[in-house]
Amino acid sequence: MTIKISPIGIIHTSYKSKEACPIQGAYFKESFGEVEIYTEYSDGLIDIETFSHIILLYHFDKSGEIKMVRPTFHDDTPHGLFATRHPCRPSGIGISIVPLISRKNNILKVGCIDVLDKTPLIDLKPYVPRFDSYPEANEGWANDKPWRPKPQGLE
Amino acid sequence: MTIKISPIGIIHTSYKSKEACPIQGAYFKESFGEVEIYTEYSDGLIDIETFSHIILLYHFDKSGEIKMVRPTFHDDTPHGLFATRHPCRPSGIGISIVPLISRKNNILKVGCIDVLDKTPLIDLKPYVPRFDSYPEANEGWANDKPWRPKPQGLE
Repeated sequence: MTIKISPIGIIHTSYKSKEACPIQGAYFKESFGEVEIYTEYSDGLIDIETFSHIILLYHFDKSGEIKMVRPTFHDDTPHGLFATRHPCRPSGIGISIVPLISRKNNILKVGCIDVLDKTPLIDLKPYVPRFDSYPEANEGWANDKPWRPKPQGLE
Repeated sequence: MTIKISPIGIIHTSYKSKEACPIQGAYFKESFGEVEIYTEYSDGLIDIETFSHIILLYHFDKSGEIKMVRPTFHDDTPHGLFATRHPCRPSGIGISIVPLISRKNNILKVGCIDVLDKTPLIDLKPYVPRFDSYPEANEGWANDKPWRPKPQGLE
């Protein structure tokens, strides 16, 4: 069974290489980007500006080899891929929750962006704390791991 | 451009029809389900049990006509599709954040499940409050809308 998906837009950022791109935009509030929705889908944006945060689903179109167990950017211990947010995964889908700063027609300006320039956008959903915010959740193996610069040589 | 995705597993629930299925599992803590990861991906689950909540991405394989502007289950006012979590969307992808109750090999028992039985699972990610929890986010047009029973006749 194969599911076929066509992008609904494209994400524009200043990050032209994996090395330049932040990991986890939550740490980079001043990292701005523009989410362009293709004009055929513009009407789907009505009322999106009433939300302060949105969920972006996008395609890691530059990701490399998929390994089921591997270290991550956060520590050097190998973890199961599905226990990480690693970009090299079977679906090739990434998710980022970002603040929505403004909308001009079919262009959304967002903060905290952590994706490469020209990343295909697959879907856009409103972030709703009632459904999506669980501050009491634990962070599993990542619980005591502070942010660290992206290690060299890791995908 | 078309992105091709193969499911990594399947979600088992007691909901055999759209009418029977809850909308937004956050309201249904006793709604249990089993997430089965296909055995070829089992190693990718290592350490997943260290997290209390997980993000499920799945395919709305029974969804109907896509309309860019439509009313939702939450109120009768039409909204832009991307300002809603409506299942009938170009990507056909749904997202649910659910508590992870237990893991037995490649089967994860979860709560708060709001998907149909045999829904194809596309991806599984750990929920990390540092990246994903924004209790201060506003709920846009849905801000003052209480939960209501699923209206008859709405997809």
